[in-house]
Amino acid sequence: MNIAEHIRDIPNFPKEGIVFKDITTLLANPEAMKYVYDTWQDRYRGKVDAVIGIESRGFIFGATLADRLALPFVPVRKPGKLPYSTISREYALEYGTDSLHIHTDSLEKGQKVVVIDDLLATGGTAKATAELIEELGAEIVEMAFVIELSFIPARTTKLKGYAVHSFVEVESE
Amino acid sequence: MNIAEHIRDIPNFPKEGIVFKDITTLLANPEAMKYVYDTWQDRYRGKVDAVIGIESRGFIFGATLADRLALPFVPVRKPGKLPYSTISREYALEYGTDSLHIHTDSLEKGQKVVVIDDLLATGGTAKATAELIEELGAEIVEMAFVIELSFIPARTTKLKGYAVHSFVEVESE
Repeated sequence: MNIAEHIRDIPNFPKEGIVFKDITTLLANPEAMKYVYDTWQDRYRGKVDAVIGIESRGFIFGATLADRLALPFVPVRKPGKLPYSTISREYALEYGTDSLHIHTDSLEKGQKVVVIDDLLATGGTAKATAELIEELGAEIVEMAFVIELSFIPARTTKLKGYAVHSFVEVESE
Repeated sequence: MNIAEHIRDIPNFPKEGIVFKDITTLLANPEAMKYVYDTWQDRYRGKVDAVIGIESRGFIFGATLADRLALPFVPVRKPGKLPYSTISREYALEYGTDSLHIHTDSLEKGQKVVVIDDLLATGGTAKATAELIEELGAEIVEMAFVIELSFIPARTTKLKGYAVHSFVEVESE
């Protein structure tokens, strides 16, 4: 199954010069989605205790994997969304910073987790998520993405030391 | 299975006087989540052609149901998120308005859908979503929520004429 065929390129979104990777065409194809979930399910079954999804497209993929594995789903969210006690990490945007948050009671020390998101670009949100998980004492087995913009070397820089899995590598801008 | 037992009340969030219904405790419980998904899967199997999820907690529940039913998942999103051709609907906030968007190629005329979100309060986002779906010529079989704040009469006002399903009815503020 070639997952790349189900991703739609949208030139100049969200701004001039950027080619946006549109996953809604993938979400519209149950056969292709089944392949993604089957692959993850086989890969992480028995290896993790919880599935982490990064807001908001990571919720789509992460929550489904949690159901497939019958495991807790833990959302990592943008500011002001999680109502209970949280910890947070800032990450850099093109201009300025934003932050990601996790509930302090969402993971226990020593738990093993997989982190799910749709796209790996600079690795900023993935790295912030990893730090949140580790501050809670849990361990990241792998960070899994549908698409990896491999022309940005996130694997060897921000995510160095973490196992990374992706279905689609985008090698040039 | 009493789903209400797995919802955590957070007083005074996001502001004084509001009791926020925290679903992260539900997401942390695979047995309770299995019950929700099993119920929906039995209820909508063979009855719908696609599952609609409203950003962002509706992504968690909607995408998983789409996988359970092997159907397309269609995200309804906040402004500036969907990269392809869209239509949009405004809805009222406490102060001002916001809008929801759907891709114009996400549904075909005559398709039957179920709309999924975590919480039914005033029905503003659900109604805006219904209008988007109907503008594309698709038909809403039911609108399904985990929690319904039934002290707000959304079923008999904004969502009048639509079938509505929920697991938890919250009868007083």
